[in-house]
Amino acid sequence: MPDKTASIVFRHPSALCESQDIGAGTHVWAFAHVMDGAVVGQNCNIGDHAFVEKGAIVGDRVTIKNGVMIWDGVTIENDAFVGPGVIFTNDRYPRSRRLAEAKKRYKNKDNWITSTKVLRGASIGAGAIILPGITIGRFATIAAGACVTHNVPNHALLVGHPAREVGWVCFCGMTLDGTLACPDCNRGFRQQDNAIVPSE
Amino acid sequence: MPDKTASIVFRHPSALCESQDIGAGTHVWAFAHVMDGAVVGQNCNIGDHAFVEKGAIVGDRVTIKNGVMIWDGVTIENDAFVGPGVIFTNDRYPRSRRLAEAKKRYKNKDNWITSTKVLRGASIGAGAIILPGITIGRFATIAAGACVTHNVPNHALLVGHPAREVGWVCFCGMTLDGTLACPDCNRGFRQQDNAIVPSE
Amino acid sequence: MPDKTASIVFRHPSALCESQDIGAGTHVWAFAHVMDGAVVGQNCNIGDHAFVEKGAIVGDRVTIKNGVMIWDGVTIENDAFVGPGVIFTNDRYPRSRRLAEAKKRYKNKDNWITSTKVLRGASIGAGAIILPGITIGRFATIAAGACVTHNVPNHALLVGHPAREVGWVCFCGMTLDGTLACPDCNRGFRQQDNAIVPSE
Repeated sequence: MPDKTASIVFRHPSALCESQDIGAGTHVWAFAHVMDGAVVGQNCNIGDHAFVEKGAIVGDRVTIKNGVMIWDGVTIENDAFVGPGVIFTNDRYPRSRRLAEAKKRYKNKDNWITSTKVLRGASIGAGAIILPGITIGRFATIAAGACVTHNVPNHALLVGHPAREVGWVCFCGMTLDGTLACPDCNRGFRQQDNAIVPSE
Repeated sequence: MPDKTASIVFRHPSALCESQDIGAGTHVWAFAHVMDGAVVGQNCNIGDHAFVEKGAIVGDRVTIKNGVMIWDGVTIENDAFVGPGVIFTNDRYPRSRRLAEAKKRYKNKDNWITSTKVLRGASIGAGAIILPGITIGRFATIAAGACVTHNVPNHALLVGHPAREVGWVCFCGMTLDGTLACPDCNRGFRQQDNAIVPSE
Repeated sequence: MPDKTASIVFRHPSALCESQDIGAGTHVWAFAHVMDGAVVGQNCNIGDHAFVEKGAIVGDRVTIKNGVMIWDGVTIENDAFVGPGVIFTNDRYPRSRRLAEAKKRYKNKDNWITSTKVLRGASIGAGAIILPGITIGRFATIAAGACVTHNVPNHALLVGHPAREVGWVCFCGMTLDGTLACPDCNRGFRQQDNAIVPSE
């Protein structure tokens, strides 16, 4: 099997790229670690001191900023942005797995791993915390430092601790105005159920 | 003196293990750093990019997830879980110690280091922040992202910023129901003063 | 050009110091990375796993604790303290820069980088989050875990999420009492507009 990693991934000399499933054009920067069994797509950027665990899945053109840890059970779809120091979680009832009263639960991954999904084009601001079992909708934006405790609709903008919806954002990332129009790229949206969709 | 570290600690080639006081069966993962003068017990797991400072004390079977920093003044008892990106603190009035107006205070550790204790079997969720001088009770659970500003009773469950008590957890980590019973392992508890104790 | 870095900067063997603009007496610790084009003054301390990006500016006698990331657009003045895991930001509307709908904005730094300034002698507590475009006043203190969403007056003490002003701090870092006097070094202050100034 050709070593895809060696030929087409841009790897900083101090990075650890143990996975054979890293796509062409992806950069892995200093002191980052992509474990064997992690899947990372093409043209991604994985910052210094980031960590991608066996079982994690990252799509194409994703930005993983410095210090982010992507655990088993976390899926990041294409074009998403994960800001520096964002914290994912995958265990609702964490205990040290060598604790006598808890070790039984950790014998089988189905007992404890709860999945998280970040859908296409979403952005998670720096230092945000994502609780286990959350889906973050397409092109949603989570503000820096927000603590996300429930699912996030497509294009929603969330801030605070716990995170609450305060507005909507465009595909391009700008906040929509009161008529659900983008002040930057002029796309329009309309309300549909509890979310918004492009008006065209 | 035999090099305990070399023979029985599982050290990733990129980890720095300068301490001679790391117990048998403990794993220290990539880019982690355990300083000379740190004490770490047996069968611990110290994740990538973690840091254990001279003066820190960690018990047996403790899980220290990725990126956690354990400072001088912090004691972690046996079987505790410290989630990824948890932040400890040890200085109530931090200043750069080379600042003219503050450097006097930093000449003596007694002037500025405030201790933190995480008691046996407690869990601290990902990205939680622990202010200086806190004791986290035995088998307590701090939710991901919580900011802990006061002492935590045994078995208490805290969430939010600032963290507040919202329930109780079992030894095994599950949330107790309204009758103070564990839905998973069936242990029962009863109220005693401001905390709970096992009913048997 | 003499290699200033090699001769007078204290660099841990595992640190990456690519910048030629690091001042004498500065320590750069394990697994830290100071990029080419970053400017760091004299007698600073840059902790393990910290990252200083091309374009970032750090003054003299600054403490940058472990895991802090200083981005392009961030300026830290002399004598400041940046606690462990503090998160800076520089993009109000973050998207992956390879996302088709956003890549135009990222072609020119003027379109997206928003500056942050930490003025002389200020302290930022562990794990605090600083939103883009903020100025933190001289000798202000941000409590651990606070999320700073607006400019901070000189000597102000801020806590919480979002951060709010709850008091004042002395040059030395101690909280002032109700008469605006420092219980530790006895300096006095008086109110002036929305901030305080030394009374002498």
